[in-house]
Amino acid sequence: MVHGRVSRLSVHDVRFPTSLGGHGSDAMHTDPDYSAAYVVLETDAEDGLKGYGITFTLGRGTEVVVCAVNALAPHVLNRELGDIVGDFRGFYRQLTSDGQLRWIGPEKGVVHLATAAVLNAVWDLWAKQEGKDPRTLVSCIDFRYITDVLTEEEACEILRQSQVGKKEREEQMLAHGYPAYTTSCAWLGYPDATLKQLCSEALKDGWTRFKVKVGADLQDDIRRCRLIRNMIGPEKTLMMDANQRWDVPEAVEWMTKLAEFKPLWIEEPTSPDDILGHAAISKALAPLGIGVATGEQCHNRVIFKQLLQAKALKFLQIDSCRLGSVNENLSVLLMAKKFEIPVCPHAGGVGLCELVQHLIIFDFISVSASLQDRMCEYVDHLHEHFKYPVLIREASYMPPKDPGYSTEMKEDSVKKHRYPDGEVWKKLLTAQGN
Amino acid sequence: MVHGRVSRLSVHDVRFPTSLGGHGSDAMHTDPDYSAAYVVLETDAEDGLKGYGITFTLGRGTEVVVCAVNALAPHVLNRELGDIVGDFRGFYRQLTSDGQLRWIGPEKGVVHLATAAVLNAVWDLWAKQEGKDPRTLVSCIDFRYITDVLTEEEACEILRQSQVGKKEREEQMLAHGYPAYTTSCAWLGYPDATLKQLCSEALKDGWTRFKVKVGADLQDDIRRCRLIRNMIGPEKTLMMDANQRWDVPEAVEWMTKLAEFKPLWIEEPTSPDDILGHAAISKALAPLGIGVATGEQCHNRVIFKQLLQAKALKFLQIDSCRLGSVNENLSVLLMAKKFEIPVCPHAGGVGLCELVQHLIIFDFISVSASLQDRMCEYVDHLHEHFKYPVLIREASYMPPKDPGYSTEMKEDSVKKHRYPDGEVWKKLLTAQGN
Repeated sequence: MVHGRVSRLSVHDVRFPTSLGGHGSDAMHTDPDYSAAYVVLETDAEDGLKGYGITFTLGRGTEVVVCAVNALAPHVLNRELGDIVGDFRGFYRQLTSDGQLRWIGPEKGVVHLATAAVLNAVWDLWAKQEGKDPRTLVSCIDFRYITDVLTEEEACEILRQSQVGKKEREEQMLAHGYPAYTTSCAWLGYPDATLKQLCSEALKDGWTRFKVKVGADLQDDIRRCRLIRNMIGPEKTLMMDANQRWDVPEAVEWMTKLAEFKPLWIEEPTSPDDILGHAAISKALAPLGIGVATGEQCHNRVIFKQLLQAKALKFLQIDSCRLGSVNENLSVLLMAKKFEIPVCPHAGGVGLCELVQHLIIFDFISVSASLQDRMCEYVDHLHEHFKYPVLIREASYMPPKDPGYSTEMKEDSVKKHRYPDGEVWKKLLTAQGN
Repeated sequence: MVHGRVSRLSVHDVRFPTSLGGHGSDAMHTDPDYSAAYVVLETDAEDGLKGYGITFTLGRGTEVVVCAVNALAPHVLNRELGDIVGDFRGFYRQLTSDGQLRWIGPEKGVVHLATAAVLNAVWDLWAKQEGKDPRTLVSCIDFRYITDVLTEEEACEILRQSQVGKKEREEQMLAHGYPAYTTSCAWLGYPDATLKQLCSEALKDGWTRFKVKVGADLQDDIRRCRLIRNMIGPEKTLMMDANQRWDVPEAVEWMTKLAEFKPLWIEEPTSPDDILGHAAISKALAPLGIGVATGEQCHNRVIFKQLLQAKALKFLQIDSCRLGSVNENLSVLLMAKKFEIPVCPHAGGVGLCELVQHLIIFDFISVSASLQDRMCEYVDHLHEHFKYPVLIREASYMPPKDPGYSTEMKEDSVKKHRYPDGEVWKKLLTAQGN
């Protein structure tokens, strides 16, 4: 039974100075400070439950997303939670189609990130109050702009068919978890010694799938890829990630030169907006056995729809904080199922692992019903700031057992990392003379 | 000779309460308050020249764009104008590829609108100081992500070939101006009586091309389209604009029913992100003689590249404030030339006509060299707030003669319309009890 009226929305600019250690660095984002716009929803209900939602950012600009969350706040404040989730599709559309605000999107960039943060908080709160059935889930999806590929009826049919074997898959997840791969060993900014050390530790911990950042310098890439491939051996899986560094012809040329290291995929070879470009790259690299993966910066379901239509990717990487929360991610999971493309979520950042584990385990149990060619990204940073951090066992995500969307951060972590007035930043900014 | 160091960047949230009169209303934006994030650049040069730049918004959310402009400010402040325009491609990329800020775009939505406002101000300032030759212009373009369709060499070659007949085209523009069409008669929120009156006035003023908003209600559309077609007669040109209201199959169905009114184009039939959807609609409507037009919410050159590759449109509508200023618009004009697709810019809003006249007249003189199937949108609102407003003569844009990008607003207009503390808003907000 859903209850309570939203009485307060607060939003915090929380930043972690990860750039100091080169963590998260890649060919396009050389100095990221992993950050989040962190939303807290309170209601007037006596249960005292709160909804926590985040969207991930890289430092500068978090204040812009915070500003956008505040611009969305009037749509949420003083609304009954029951009314919101009772017509969640309508509520989603209200946020994304505000007659004035949509101009600065629509459904992309800052406003869509802010929408994700707000909706993630609503889902967290709702999930703490009650369970959901498949029909309820479909009613949360806004099918606008995707009915040429997926209708509401088809979505229901997919979920209905996936009821078969659901119980066994639940048990399988509880026992073994969802397979993960690690990105923690080979950030672009790490010296070779760090890379070696992290790689050998990861091997000891049972990791079998590794991702390496490429794209800044070809000779450097060759050296680093050789180093990793030698360390992990020919049988283990290696993925490469260029973070949008290349133009289309350049991507093909560059990856042809890295093909000897047998990457399973090249991730984000070019602009996330370039559907036809990804299709061209996919076609060119298929004979080399390299698939194309993308998604972490694909801004909405319309882009994913076209990537699927154009056969532009072999691995689809949803993001829990760039798409419009569970609502929009559901539509992408269902389209991927229809096109038989495996979903391998983007994670890492701040809280992305915590969020996305829910989506991908749901995908396995209730949508795809398969682990073939599937795995979820994992990065072992910043989990200590979450109240319900992910649990990794033998390189797999173990299903979260606490109610909600695992998005609550520790109060003390938020306080210390609030930008610019938290203790950590005060110290850093003073040292930088700002 | 370029000179001066940027000593100050200020940005204002300027809003006009146009929703009170239904001006600007369409199927998706029912109550727009035409607004702008208005940037003023000052330098330490003795000439005292300032650069004025805007990006257009619809009211709510302008504060978010203002916040993003402030986030970009460190890239501009204390820079020599000579250094900026001396490597304008590099500067463009610095703004659009900031390692932290690009995450909340990249090159789309709020940050890209903010980028446009800042760059429009730089162009305004630069244009007041000196003229530019074609090679300089090409050096301003960031070819990243479009080299599979247009290389720097090809761009230079297009401009070189268009030198032929340039002088005659300049004279033609000075004498007759650039052909325009009007959107002022048929906003969706206007009652039929207003529509009739405005239409008959426009006919008297010599307008021959008219656009009508559609998409909210089919019967209503049929009535309004019949009314206008009857008033303007069978020979004059009628365009329709759905402002993204439809899904792909719906667009085809709906437009089939409006085909009897002989529209030249249907504008924004669906999501601006749906390249393949626009291609499908184009193909379906071609036998009915209806072309597809889009662009005002296409967020960057990568989207335009694909619309051209996919034969998704018959008319390409650039926007001076959504793309990254002159720099990015140049790349789109050149790609359109290569694909032989006419450019018919989006205008109206706040200052869009003032800005876009420069682009489209340049397009005719130096790129397309043709008026075939070409015209520029015009809306007769809010020009009185600009210091150098557009001059329309016989339904044509007359070339602007003052130096700069025509973006300076009257001081008093800015003061009165600043949100929320300008006189106009103080009064309105008090009346609304806010």
